[in-house]
Amino acid sequence: MAESIQIYIPPLDEGAMRQAEARQARLTKPAASLGRLEALSISLAGMTGRLDTPLANRVVFTLAADHGVALEGVSAYPREVTAQMVLNFLNGGAAINVLARQMDARVVVADLGVDADLPAHPDLRSLKVRRGTASITRGPAMSVREARQAIGHGRLLAREEIARSLDVALTGDMGIGNTTASAALICALTELDPKDVVGRGTGVDDEGLERKRQAVRTALAVNAELISKGPLETLAAVGGLEIAGLVGVILEAAAGRRPVVIDGFISGAAALVAARIAPAVAGYMIAGHRSQELGHGAVLRRLGLTPLLDLDLRLGEGTGAVLALPLLEAAVRTLNEMATFDEAGVSERDQEAAHNSPHN
Amino acid sequence: MAESIQIYIPPLDEGAMRQAEARQARLTKPAASLGRLEALSISLAGMTGRLDTPLANRVVFTLAADHGVALEGVSAYPREVTAQMVLNFLNGGAAINVLARQMDARVVVADLGVDADLPAHPDLRSLKVRRGTASITRGPAMSVREARQAIGHGRLLAREEIARSLDVALTGDMGIGNTTASAALICALTELDPKDVVGRGTGVDDEGLERKRQAVRTALAVNAELISKGPLETLAAVGGLEIAGLVGVILEAAAGRRPVVIDGFISGAAALVAARIAPAVAGYMIAGHRSQELGHGAVLRRLGLTPLLDLDLRLGEGTGAVLALPLLEAAVRTLNEMATFDEAGVSERDQEAAHNSPHN
Repeated sequence: MAESIQIYIPPLDEGAMRQAEARQARLTKPAASLGRLEALSISLAGMTGRLDTPLANRVVFTLAADHGVALEGVSAYPREVTAQMVLNFLNGGAAINVLARQMDARVVVADLGVDADLPAHPDLRSLKVRRGTASITRGPAMSVREARQAIGHGRLLAREEIARSLDVALTGDMGIGNTTASAALICALTELDPKDVVGRGTGVDDEGLERKRQAVRTALAVNAELISKGPLETLAAVGGLEIAGLVGVILEAAAGRRPVVIDGFISGAAALVAARIAPAVAGYMIAGHRSQELGHGAVLRRLGLTPLLDLDLRLGEGTGAVLALPLLEAAVRTLNEMATFDEAGVSERDQEAAHNSPHN
Repeated sequence: MAESIQIYIPPLDEGAMRQAEARQARLTKPAASLGRLEALSISLAGMTGRLDTPLANRVVFTLAADHGVALEGVSAYPREVTAQMVLNFLNGGAAINVLARQMDARVVVADLGVDADLPAHPDLRSLKVRRGTASITRGPAMSVREARQAIGHGRLLAREEIARSLDVALTGDMGIGNTTASAALICALTELDPKDVVGRGTGVDDEGLERKRQAVRTALAVNAELISKGPLETLAAVGGLEIAGLVGVILEAAAGRRPVVIDGFISGAAALVAARIAPAVAGYMIAGHRSQELGHGAVLRRLGLTPLLDLDLRLGEGTGAVLALPLLEAAVRTLNEMATFDEAGVSERDQEAAHNSPHN
């Protein structure tokens, strides 16, 4: 029998959504002319229960861990890069640092399972569950207990930030090999074929791509029994420690009625696991962007999400989530700050006139 | 013989583009993983000749004018709305005001030909060429001399802002009936059929859409001779005064090597005219978003532009241009502020290892 995670996700506030929708119709613009920003303003109202969803306190959870499968030629980068990039995050030199500075977001860097002794640093949360996962091609990545522990760490991180007035959570990842683990997770949870899910990650060549596909096929076969038990077991079987941490961040942020902006492929895999554990969590998700990684579209469709941006990104770290923040802000600001037709003395769209005006 | 506009558009700085491209390859990220942001950073370097393109001083040129064709049942809104919306811009209540405040942009509102006596206002530039165009279904919208005058006004506005250290220009429009004029312009310049270009604008019903199509067909037939002479004459024949003003803004900003972010359908029509007058101007254009208006895609393809955002917007005013500003900033910041592999001590992607690693 599947193990479970106990968590209560509140339903969306339908009343606030109706109010937001009604206000959109009164703003000085043609109906629906702000397109997806209008829908986004309504979704955000549903999540937070207010039309003026606060967005000032924005935190990117960039979780890092290593993957046993990285030793099997599935990445264009050596495994040491995970630890090196964590140091780069702490020095403020990575893309996520630059973009977070631009967007006034704070980056929480956490080590969920990097296979290196990282130096103590005031900005690094050390939550190492183990030094990397075991290779998913030979057995489970981790025990169910370890998966549960990593989820708990992610929940802790989100809870701490909620206590510090978090307004919006953003997910990010770092882990050489983690597109392979994410692809395996997605295949296991959706029954899609690896050829439709496994992509080039950081940029493997054709041979590397074939190795990745084969690694995923092997992982699914070797771990079939554990996978069959449920989402938590599947996460333990073929997932990763940073992915499990993100599952926890997503669950806890949604439980606290905070919007969660999902980054790309790896975050998408975590979002899919979170939604299998607690389906209502999907109502709190916003897809930041459409990743170039094969299989991301399938994940988004299953979560019922349409990404806000489509910029051919495939970097991770949380970059595609942070880039979407100005659109969330634009959605909330237009809903709240625009004049209504009444206030501005602007003639409303005259449906009747449009229908009846003579063909002159 | 076609009349012409004398303007020199400097070529893009190929050296700066090569430098930007070389730097992109050294940044701590997989090659091309920042997708379109990388290409954008290179384009911006080409426009301004520097890797750290300044973007602080951002101005939206929201030009307004009326259209004779608006009296022929082609819009869901009455013609008075043009003037009412200009007042709304001046009061800060329109979508463009809200978004410009968010993005730290200034809105320059100019009356190029509104058919109303607008009150004097410190934030309104009064550059009325005439009180609205004549209906394009009965003859030319304006004289070639008036079109030239409106272009000159747009150039003046851009020149004034360049003197005040403009960094980036954004185009915007307001004019009931201007999707009809823009569709006619686009058909005239591209020889596309009205059925593939004319859309619902602010939201006309099926009957209104058919009236718009018919108005465009009639306008093209009535003005065929003038259209055949050249882009300036075509603009006079079936364009609009705010569209002509935008042509001037685009030409002058490009002449001053400033990036120009093009809003949606109406701005796209202006961009197409500008590129027919001076083809090199297209190198300075960035498409802010993909408009919902039918025919916008065809315009972008002809200009060689791919829009940054695709949010089902169809509002105009400059909203789809302003929303793209954070992406320009992200492109410039990542290029300039990210650490290189050397600086960060991160192992580079090992092509050889990727090709030769054993299938273990």
